[in-house]
Amino acid sequence: MKSSSATAKTTPLAIGLDFGTASVRALLVDLTGRERGSAVVNYRHGQITKTLPGDDRPLPPDFALQHPGDWLESSARAVRRVLRAGGGDAHDVIGIGVDFTSCTMLPALRDGTPLCQLDRFAREKHAWPKLWKHHGAKSQTERINQLAKSRKEAWLARYGGIIGLEWFFPKVLEVLETAPHVYAATEVWLEAGDWFVWQLVGGDAGRLPRSTCQAGYKAMWNRTDGYPSRAFFKALHPKMADVLDRMPGHLVAPGQCAGELCESVARKFGLRPGIPVSAAIIDAHAGVPGAGVAEPDTLVMVMGTSSCHMLNAKQEILVPGVAGVVADGILPGYFGYETGQAAVGDAFDWLRNTLGHRDFGKLTKQAHSVLPGAEGVRCVDWFNGCRTPLMDGTLRGAFTGLALHHGPHHLYRALLEASAFGLRWIVEVMEEAGVPVKRFVATGGLPHHNPLLMQIYADVLGRPITVHPSKQGPALGAAILGVLAAGPRTTGFHSAAAAVRAMARPVRDANGDVLQALVVQPNRGANRQYQQLYAEYRDLTAVLRSDPQAD
Amino acid sequence: MKSSSATAKTTPLAIGLDFGTASVRALLVDLTGRERGSAVVNYRHGQITKTLPGDDRPLPPDFALQHPGDWLESSARAVRRVLRAGGGDAHDVIGIGVDFTSCTMLPALRDGTPLCQLDRFAREKHAWPKLWKHHGAKSQTERINQLAKSRKEAWLARYGGIIGLEWFFPKVLEVLETAPHVYAATEVWLEAGDWFVWQLVGGDAGRLPRSTCQAGYKAMWNRTDGYPSRAFFKALHPKMADVLDRMPGHLVAPGQCAGELCESVARKFGLRPGIPVSAAIIDAHAGVPGAGVAEPDTLVMVMGTSSCHMLNAKQEILVPGVAGVVADGILPGYFGYETGQAAVGDAFDWLRNTLGHRDFGKLTKQAHSVLPGAEGVRCVDWFNGCRTPLMDGTLRGAFTGLALHHGPHHLYRALLEASAFGLRWIVEVMEEAGVPVKRFVATGGLPHHNPLLMQIYADVLGRPITVHPSKQGPALGAAILGVLAAGPRTTGFHSAAAAVRAMARPVRDANGDVLQALVVQPNRGANRQYQQLYAEYRDLTAVLRSDPQAD
Repeated sequence: MKSSSATAKTTPLAIGLDFGTASVRALLVDLTGRERGSAVVNYRHGQITKTLPGDDRPLPPDFALQHPGDWLESSARAVRRVLRAGGGDAHDVIGIGVDFTSCTMLPALRDGTPLCQLDRFAREKHAWPKLWKHHGAKSQTERINQLAKSRKEAWLARYGGIIGLEWFFPKVLEVLETAPHVYAATEVWLEAGDWFVWQLVGGDAGRLPRSTCQAGYKAMWNRTDGYPSRAFFKALHPKMADVLDRMPGHLVAPGQCAGELCESVARKFGLRPGIPVSAAIIDAHAGVPGAGVAEPDTLVMVMGTSSCHMLNAKQEILVPGVAGVVADGILPGYFGYETGQAAVGDAFDWLRNTLGHRDFGKLTKQAHSVLPGAEGVRCVDWFNGCRTPLMDGTLRGAFTGLALHHGPHHLYRALLEASAFGLRWIVEVMEEAGVPVKRFVATGGLPHHNPLLMQIYADVLGRPITVHPSKQGPALGAAILGVLAAGPRTTGFHSAAAAVRAMARPVRDANGDVLQALVVQPNRGANRQYQQLYAEYRDLTAVLRSDPQAD
Repeated sequence: MKSSSATAKTTPLAIGLDFGTASVRALLVDLTGRERGSAVVNYRHGQITKTLPGDDRPLPPDFALQHPGDWLESSARAVRRVLRAGGGDAHDVIGIGVDFTSCTMLPALRDGTPLCQLDRFAREKHAWPKLWKHHGAKSQTERINQLAKSRKEAWLARYGGIIGLEWFFPKVLEVLETAPHVYAATEVWLEAGDWFVWQLVGGDAGRLPRSTCQAGYKAMWNRTDGYPSRAFFKALHPKMADVLDRMPGHLVAPGQCAGELCESVARKFGLRPGIPVSAAIIDAHAGVPGAGVAEPDTLVMVMGTSSCHMLNAKQEILVPGVAGVVADGILPGYFGYETGQAAVGDAFDWLRNTLGHRDFGKLTKQAHSVLPGAEGVRCVDWFNGCRTPLMDGTLRGAFTGLALHHGPHHLYRALLEASAFGLRWIVEVMEEAGVPVKRFVATGGLPHHNPLLMQIYADVLGRPITVHPSKQGPALGAAILGVLAAGPRTTGFHSAAAAVRAMARPVRDANGDVLQALVVQPNRGANRQYQQLYAEYRDLTAVLRSDPQAD
């Protein structure tokens, strides 16, 4: 672990670009993982949910779009700002990694031009990039699931038996059905992360680098079987038969080199051309290497507005309700399992706002003094549906057991406990299917801000949780993938695990000092109390599922 | 209806004394119902829930006590204040009526001295009057219900098959079991309303006037069978066998004369001695005559922190879940049915506080603009248990169907709708058992403050609701009972119905002008929507009852 690369003084640097929903972060690190600089730049148009730029017709309520120009401009500004700050020299950058929200996707021409940037499509909402959280494809998702089930499509089992509303092909089908002229004009359908990497490396559409991670988790692609068959797409919609013809490119795994930085973009970013660029990775998935996890059977919990819980394992086991199992989906050599909770920080914020609190200070302090069980208040955390294991976005949250003596802090504590029960359910589903979960690592913003939450998680699981000290896990993970793309001859790392261990475990601050990881130990007494409370949570979820309300 | 008494100029006046939880109201009216004056005086010691006066030992959390001296002092001050204000002459007062919270009860000596006013009992919490909401007798209530069920006690059916935590004998048994020396020293167990009337009229304990209303609704008394048998009480606790010996007095119906105002109290109140005093009535029940209702089959909804829904009917039908059916319990000649919802205004206040709102203004305005169904939010209104029809104080409230786009006003609207569904359930239980509900009259503070609530009630029921214009229904009802106690020779009213019609329908303001009753008409479209929503509410209540959480 203390290999030459971790102890030797090296100048090589890597850039991680972490594209979130509202902004992009650029992180500059050296090969010991020491942070040399970081900058966050908001997208000029943010999330486009009300009207298109330069248009005043209201968008439908389910719409969430983005401006592709923002991705290039914001990331260029962020990189220039980091370099200007003087933490490192642009000439020492040896690799670039990119993580991106997913499935954020767009229609483009073969030369890379997004359709929305053509005059004739600028006022056509379906020509714009659809953000991951765009929910316009409800009926399309249902039909894809029904058809796949009735045709017994083999790929369905890899996604727990059901695909999601936010995925790639539902969004394509939505465009085909509601704006067929946009579909007809589209030469290239692709993920935004892939589009961005393509812009960095340039080149012909026939060789555009598509991420195995995005394709595997969001577009039903598999290394053995490829995408769903032409017959399937044809059965879905006659005009959809040719969709794979509109998806040129070749598949590249995260950490593999997608190409080298082209002249024009290098100039724009203030970098030298020719730097190796890794294939994109989904933002949450970048949190796994970013949290220093290279070994199997460790659940990495990337916790923010929602939570994505990921795990690498040696074996491929198709677990009902698990959103995706993808070979080399997160790190090479492993099957990557993705599970998630749809509302975590989002739900806490919602409750805080609903209760009229400005911040979490008072709520947290009071909730802390309440014993496990919140004095009888029970909660189900489905405020944005249930991702794993039920994969049902229409389910809704609940509070029960309410009496006049309860205060806001009882509701808040009940919500934190419900979130922990939701996680425990996921772990049980995995373990019962034969996928062991041996260690827990939490990363993302939430674990740092909410120690009470982490204690409740540890108490409910009855297992210690390591809170990874980096506050920018995905950006660090992306930078590590950039280092991997540069290859062992440049970096000295002969495996992904070696790079992860050197750069993200331990984590170093800007001075190169090691940051201690916090290990939250479960309280045995609380864990005993939570056994019964968890059983009650499961009973309540069963009751709410069978309840007509839940529709 | 426009009888001599309503149109003739008369000087006779009546006083209604309305004893609430925190204060007493004195109302002076003439025999046309015109208000001559009114005053509210708080009890000096309020509700005693933390420590006894002059003591610093904390009371148990379930305790709620009162100071008997407060009742006399506050009512004397209120009457003197009303008379001083000059709306009428003390010599014209021909009758006094009293309504009181129930079951508020106390132990006393045969001379009327409350035990808590003896030095040796001043620091003994069980010697103090227990307020209606005192909840110290949980296990005792359970045992009484179990025993009554196993012995197949005939009286149980008159209370819907179960008696309540707040009733008379559970509180007596609580004292016997936890402070046997207090039980042993008690010569007279009685309702606070009866104690107060006894103080007004004086006399021997053997003739102390007990209200058929309180005895019927809270102490399992019935005109035919009397109280439960000595054998029942003995089986409950050997020392309880003599409890009826400790309950001297004779039973008098509200509106019948309990006696005449005695010298000492008359002096204290600034009234002439010899004024007829009616037997006491439960505060909510006084709302029936106070709301101008003298005819059968009309549900009078007395709405405040909780709601008491009462109805007079010609026939006695024992309805499972209906808290009490008492002959002459509300008005002579009818069987009085009592039903209720345990948390109404209390629940609205609780939610407003929990949501951090200072008042209802903004919540109401926003809730008004939401369509029936609160955009998917569902509520069960059991925040203080379910009174009718489940008679289970341990049940708890719930919100389901919650999503991140819901705001506080969705929760508030869902709660208002749940309250209306709770009422509809009560009406259905009555009608299915063969007790028709032909008209709806709302009274109490809430209907005046919350027009949105009244509209939702009307829409959910699909029936018009008359909001009675008097803001002091129970006090007016008490004054009418005082008039009845004075007898037809003094008043010219030969029936309760005649007095009610003359004095409370229509209602007159201080100038003698008629106040228009507001009639809230149901919206047909909303009513149709609520059919389905009500069915969902009932499903949800079924689900929560069977849920282990609800325990």
